[in-house]
Amino acid sequence: MNTMRIMILGGDGFCGWATALHLSSLGHEITIVDNLSRRRIDHDLGVESLTPIASLEQRVERWYMEMGERIEIVTINVARDIKALHQLISHTNPGAIIHFAQQRAAPFSMKTMRHKMYTIDNNVNATHNVLAILADLKSDTHLIHLGTMGVYGYGSTDGEILPEGYLQVVPTRGPRSDDIFGPPREIRYPTNPGSVYHMTKCLDAEMFAYYAKNDHLRITDLHQGIVWGTMTDPMLMHEELINRFDYDGDYGTVLNRFIVQGAIGYPLTVHGTGGQTRAFIHIRDSVRCIELALENPPQRGERVKIFNQMTETHRVYDLARHCADLTGADMQMVDNPRNEAAANTLNVDNHSFIDLGLKPTLLNDALINEVHDIVDRFKSRIDTTKIPCTSRWVK
Amino acid sequence: MNTMRIMILGGDGFCGWATALHLSSLGHEITIVDNLSRRRIDHDLGVESLTPIASLEQRVERWYMEMGERIEIVTINVARDIKALHQLISHTNPGAIIHFAQQRAAPFSMKTMRHKMYTIDNNVNATHNVLAILADLKSDTHLIHLGTMGVYGYGSTDGEILPEGYLQVVPTRGPRSDDIFGPPREIRYPTNPGSVYHMTKCLDAEMFAYYAKNDHLRITDLHQGIVWGTMTDPMLMHEELINRFDYDGDYGTVLNRFIVQGAIGYPLTVHGTGGQTRAFIHIRDSVRCIELALENPPQRGERVKIFNQMTETHRVYDLARHCADLTGADMQMVDNPRNEAAANTLNVDNHSFIDLGLKPTLLNDALINEVHDIVDRFKSRIDTTKIPCTSRWVK
Repeated sequence: MNTMRIMILGGDGFCGWATALHLSSLGHEITIVDNLSRRRIDHDLGVESLTPIASLEQRVERWYMEMGERIEIVTINVARDIKALHQLISHTNPGAIIHFAQQRAAPFSMKTMRHKMYTIDNNVNATHNVLAILADLKSDTHLIHLGTMGVYGYGSTDGEILPEGYLQVVPTRGPRSDDIFGPPREIRYPTNPGSVYHMTKCLDAEMFAYYAKNDHLRITDLHQGIVWGTMTDPMLMHEELINRFDYDGDYGTVLNRFIVQGAIGYPLTVHGTGGQTRAFIHIRDSVRCIELALENPPQRGERVKIFNQMTETHRVYDLARHCADLTGADMQMVDNPRNEAAANTLNVDNHSFIDLGLKPTLLNDALINEVHDIVDRFKSRIDTTKIPCTSRWVK
Repeated sequence: MNTMRIMILGGDGFCGWATALHLSSLGHEITIVDNLSRRRIDHDLGVESLTPIASLEQRVERWYMEMGERIEIVTINVARDIKALHQLISHTNPGAIIHFAQQRAAPFSMKTMRHKMYTIDNNVNATHNVLAILADLKSDTHLIHLGTMGVYGYGSTDGEILPEGYLQVVPTRGPRSDDIFGPPREIRYPTNPGSVYHMTKCLDAEMFAYYAKNDHLRITDLHQGIVWGTMTDPMLMHEELINRFDYDGDYGTVLNRFIVQGAIGYPLTVHGTGGQTRAFIHIRDSVRCIELALENPPQRGERVKIFNQMTETHRVYDLARHCADLTGADMQMVDNPRNEAAANTLNVDNHSFIDLGLKPTLLNDALINEVHDIVDRFKSRIDTTKIPCTSRWVK
């Protein structure tokens, strides 16, 4: 595809940094917009990335030295600095904006009342500011947003397949076919968020639909599964390009956490029965999906494009069992901090990315070992007191 | 019913003040929480209420002199002053909170990018702060929110009846009954907001559903039609109790504006074809509905109660014709500033309030004349340059 100026909001984070390097390596001109809030949250929580990450300035300087590509950095709080953000978007007129600028951890969003409020205030205003600015500029810019599979909830127990955003339904007064009383209509798949964080992604969907309708903004919403792995190819060039790796009870995600726990002989903490089935995607496929979304934007006036960005589903217990077997670590069943069903099935339609050419990177021991090696290299940096999830959905 | 402590957020506004007096006259102990933002917006827009409204302090002092009932006033920005709001709710432990503390005008929300951002930031945080505080306190307080019929959109052209919040549907692959592929499920009626203001009420609905599910908060969401009229009985006691009356292009609502225009011989401004059908309710019925909602709260763990708070529907053109005939004023068809269908039908289910005992106050010439008399008394205060709606949905 033609290369273009791409603005990456939240480009210093786990997915954002990987995306910046991937798209820069494809020749796109990248502007990272970030207020370094993720690093500040680490500081507030008293944790650090397992991997020693360089400063954002060092990162892009190193990238320039390795690749000869300049990544621009702009320090803006997307949720607050309206004037600066408007000027930046207006002046650079990017072909695409990729929006990661949100608080992204469900347990963090549920820690206290203040964490709930921060997550809502930050995430809703960040998304809406971008939308209102693009509408003000009558912009053709393609907005790609990182959402979550969690907007659908995890309650599917009847084997139904979660579609890519939309569902056709008929209104009915009862279970019989002659109870139907209106024509079929397409709806956004009903939301059922499992945390305040997940809820913000449902609020985003409502705002996207409105601005696509009223202002004909071009929007793609990626409903992403749990990302695992840590490195993408460009990061292998130099240690200063290394990605962050979260293992703590707030920001660590389930499969990566199991690998960390296995690597240091910490009992693998399975929440509840482990009967939860979740969708997963490797970080390498995540950045590839964003590339594919970039190449296939909706037109002005088209509805929001929604893709399920995941490659496989696994039961949490099975993942823990597998990681425990690989590493010889024990498993420990602990109270589930979340307010959710003890077990669920999950069937996800992900045909859009497959049709566009995604070759799924499925879970395998070589990849698990790759993550394991990273952990092993930096395991002296682990603070085991930060491993348990202390957030509680209902106090 | 038993009287209780009731907190009215936004109790200085048009509906809020009428509600405060109504519930105080029923013997409830009232706390008004308001930051006077509505008066500041008037100032910023360079308009004033048609009626000369007393300060909030004068209002409650006068109410005490007339009725011997104390209404407490607390100056808090519900969207910002988290600590003060938490302390207030925690200390007073109200039986109910009635939430009007939102920017409530669609044209205002669409004036500029900054107005859109203010409306989202203020309205979303106001609602969420209240929810997060009630969850933090594990509160039994009944939260009653003033929403809008506009969450449903106004696109109904097939005669379908808009239900009270929920719709039973079956998923289908096509129009035939054997295209159905899953069991019936209940969904919130799909949203289709017509402005950023209306959208905030859809965002509210998402947050209500979540907090009712996760924290078992007790919530009633009132989907209100366009309120008309101005006075309720308690206000007739003294001029210092008079309600505000908005006639400007941002905050004035359609029927009241027609009466104002007719009273001063200003051509009645019909937007577009006037083929829009809207739901209406008189301010007297509005406060009565809130009383009925108060008496019929959901239990903890119950889903959000949603009532359609309206008594009749009218086509805008017909209302204009009627008011023009009554007053001898002309009509003027002007460009529709909104982005909407030229005409729509609207059928609304409002059985809940009727079943609870609401006796609808339907549109009649005596009531129109009552409003007309108010306008006539204060018409020297009208600034006719403020009558046109200058907001445009799409620039």
